[in-house]
Amino acid sequence: MSGKNKNAISPLRSEDYPEWYQQVIKAADLAEVSSVRGCMVIKPWGYGMWELLQRELDDRIKATGHENAYFPLFIPLSFLQREADHVEGFAKECAVVTHHRLEEKDGQLVPAGELEEPLIVRPTSETIIGESFAKWVQSYRDLPLMINQWANVVRWEMRTRLFLRTAEFLWQEGHTAHATEEEARAEMDTMLEVYRELAEDVLALPVICGEKTEGERFPGATTTLCIEAMMQDRKALQAGTSHYLGQNFSKASGIQFLNKEGEQEFAYTTSWGVSTRLIGGVIMTHGDDDGMRVPPKIAPKHVVVIPVVPKAELEGEVFEYADKVAAALKSATYDRQPVRVQVDKRDIRGGEKTWSWVKKGVPLRIEIGPRDIEAGKVVLFRRDRGPKEKEFVSIDELPNKIPGILSEIQDGYYQQAKKYREENTRTDLSTFDELKEFFTPKNTQKPEIHGGFVRAKWCEDSEVEKKLSELKITIRCMPLEQSGDTGKCIVTGKEAKKDAIFAKAY
Amino acid sequence: MSGKNKNAISPLRSEDYPEWYQQVIKAADLAEVSSVRGCMVIKPWGYGMWELLQRELDDRIKATGHENAYFPLFIPLSFLQREADHVEGFAKECAVVTHHRLEEKDGQLVPAGELEEPLIVRPTSETIIGESFAKWVQSYRDLPLMINQWANVVRWEMRTRLFLRTAEFLWQEGHTAHATEEEARAEMDTMLEVYRELAEDVLALPVICGEKTEGERFPGATTTLCIEAMMQDRKALQAGTSHYLGQNFSKASGIQFLNKEGEQEFAYTTSWGVSTRLIGGVIMTHGDDDGMRVPPKIAPKHVVVIPVVPKAELEGEVFEYADKVAAALKSATYDRQPVRVQVDKRDIRGGEKTWSWVKKGVPLRIEIGPRDIEAGKVVLFRRDRGPKEKEFVSIDELPNKIPGILSEIQDGYYQQAKKYREENTRTDLSTFDELKEFFTPKNTQKPEIHGGFVRAKWCEDSEVEKKLSELKITIRCMPLEQSGDTGKCIVTGKEAKKDAIFAKAY
Repeated sequence: MSGKNKNAISPLRSEDYPEWYQQVIKAADLAEVSSVRGCMVIKPWGYGMWELLQRELDDRIKATGHENAYFPLFIPLSFLQREADHVEGFAKECAVVTHHRLEEKDGQLVPAGELEEPLIVRPTSETIIGESFAKWVQSYRDLPLMINQWANVVRWEMRTRLFLRTAEFLWQEGHTAHATEEEARAEMDTMLEVYRELAEDVLALPVICGEKTEGERFPGATTTLCIEAMMQDRKALQAGTSHYLGQNFSKASGIQFLNKEGEQEFAYTTSWGVSTRLIGGVIMTHGDDDGMRVPPKIAPKHVVVIPVVPKAELEGEVFEYADKVAAALKSATYDRQPVRVQVDKRDIRGGEKTWSWVKKGVPLRIEIGPRDIEAGKVVLFRRDRGPKEKEFVSIDELPNKIPGILSEIQDGYYQQAKKYREENTRTDLSTFDELKEFFTPKNTQKPEIHGGFVRAKWCEDSEVEKKLSELKITIRCMPLEQSGDTGKCIVTGKEAKKDAIFAKAY
Repeated sequence: MSGKNKNAISPLRSEDYPEWYQQVIKAADLAEVSSVRGCMVIKPWGYGMWELLQRELDDRIKATGHENAYFPLFIPLSFLQREADHVEGFAKECAVVTHHRLEEKDGQLVPAGELEEPLIVRPTSETIIGESFAKWVQSYRDLPLMINQWANVVRWEMRTRLFLRTAEFLWQEGHTAHATEEEARAEMDTMLEVYRELAEDVLALPVICGEKTEGERFPGATTTLCIEAMMQDRKALQAGTSHYLGQNFSKASGIQFLNKEGEQEFAYTTSWGVSTRLIGGVIMTHGDDDGMRVPPKIAPKHVVVIPVVPKAELEGEVFEYADKVAAALKSATYDRQPVRVQVDKRDIRGGEKTWSWVKKGVPLRIEIGPRDIEAGKVVLFRRDRGPKEKEFVSIDELPNKIPGILSEIQDGYYQQAKKYREENTRTDLSTFDELKEFFTPKNTQKPEIHGGFVRAKWCEDSEVEKKLSELKITIRCMPLEQSGDTGKCIVTGKEAKKDAIFAKAY
């Protein structure tokens, strides 16, 4: 990562991390706040990352035996109420449709045509999909039913932040029904593993796989698994969840089947989802003081080719060479797809153009000028190196060389993030006072990056979580990989079996 | 197409076309009515067609220089009102969000937290996207701005029909802004051509490209172009539209730019869209009395392999051979992608299994039994032939042979639909009485497929359209390919320049 320069993001990460995050999104042209409260506009560079993430995840969802379908945007209020914990979890923040037209009254357009039953814009679709599943499932032969939906959902959040927490967001939600608990739990595990692979292998986000405590479970779930990542302010980001819902929702929706013994039984269901929040995680993990750094696997462009034209009369020749370089690059393959190249012929200042791409975080920049043409070379800049660190590559070598460099960058981002997490994870704390000390800023005069993850035992008493909330920390998860089942709870000092991750979180 | 048999769709097309349509959707498991008024559930086989259509169209949208982005689901009422014709066009049928939470009152959950300004669930996004464009465009250097969005939209239709007219539907909407009228009009033309290609080359739907009359334009547009297809009941289906919006929406939203002369000017904008309605068009065009027939380019599976197991002890051997056949097929390529194959090992009656795939309209069925294994053969059934017409193909030949057969089926569906349209298009009618006669059913005792397209001159007087509405027909479009500019209006007998297509329509 480079030091401060006149083109750096202001403020730097170390100066004001939340504001740095907003400024990176702006500088990289990823998204913006819309005029509609809490909703965002996802701009092409940000949406391009989401599309590539979608493609990678969709392939994996299908490869694990699921099919895509689409269910209504609206949920009748009575459906949402069928599961008590569920409606409790979402009633406080939902968009309610009450009318179906507008009419003029005293020269003003006002809502008219009141609905008999209000409709809720889906915050999640367990209840509306459950209604269909109940019709589709009759016998054990109809199971498992394994469905996924790509959709927008709405949760009326009061404090919103681009990508991380918005009133409307995009996601996928998987919903499955099975004949046995065992099978449903295996499905929950399979999808958590798909999410881990997406996060680590595609987004270069190292994650901890674990189980949520009872207090942090999805409203209505029996078990919630999650992947948790560490951001550069050392806070945790819940990056994906996979739920075993037991028979809670099948009883609520009436998803029953005739089992092999000829008896009616309620199905065992799961649900699982990841959202555009992941893009926020990628920004907060990989961005640096110069702006965004996009992992190559989800980079809308892998390489930008910038023609450098010192005199107007050379433009034709340089542009032609730039197109030739781009064509050569497109013949190369990275991650089973042709390398994605853009030639930037915009008529703007060279420095401005270069920095616009540094800030967008394109993995590779290639600059070419009149002198490079004769030499048959290009000047290559990598986003994982300093912005001025260059190397000369001949145009003949380029297609062979680029895929390897992209792999190096992808892997480098992952390793860097993993090292950062490890450096900021404590496993040696054993008392509540030490915990408190670790999560208390040293300098209260300015925002300060402090704390991290603490891995320690807890006694599984819900009182612990209340006490932790005083420190504004939570148990992020009980990692699937446990260290053994004996120890002392870091909070109460009582006998404790489970390892847990303690952290501040988004 | 096959004659009536015990497995045929009931009613047949000729008996009751609208009901046949519903029954095909049910038999092919494409979609169903949901419990939410006017909204549909798109089931995996129907959604799979939509996904393939999306992929084909998205590639073409990007190849013509557009980028995808995403804008809010909600439109503040005041935004919708900015363009007078536009709000007039959508106010009568829109979902209105008025509250942002639920609270308990007398033991009932009721809407609470009333919004200061009602939000409209987008029926289309000109006004909300215009709000962003106004911020993004300052100078002619920022133009053209070429954006596409894949999204769900809501129009509170009172009479709904699966795929064709639903309260919520899925679509893409392109929105572009340009520095000149000429460029914007060229964009409108380009996208109409993209839609024509999608319809004809991908969906096998022959279409007529034309311009809408003033009365049929999109609310707020200066020019609306469209593609119109003929269904098997000889009615027209508007299958896609491309609009030149002039400066109407740029004035409404304030999309202004500094032109090359240094003056502020309003941008020239376009919008264009196609929706899940296209799937309805595909069903109504290609379905037959045995069920659905899916054009190979959007078939979720090209080939289903059905193992025929006469005795339980042979199951292992037959299943193994089926998997081997499937693997061989996947090595073949059709339409630049691996052939999509499914082995159907469900434990249900053979006849039921076979007919489930006939009804789904999978292009090719392959049946294999124990005797085929020794001979190294398979039995192949094509959906464009009678359901019992079979041919024997050796497993070695199979991968080479299948892509060609798929091309034949794709082309055959297109040619058949085109022939049907030509046979049911009249160009020889010249008076209103003849028009009336053509569109009047002969037998009023039962629903009857009658009429078709009439191509004739019209005098461009809006009174003509009022008179046509008595016959329940409309001018579908003025074809882009015109026959010359002299003639007599078929309705008024006055001098007329323009050819028009007259038809009943969905």
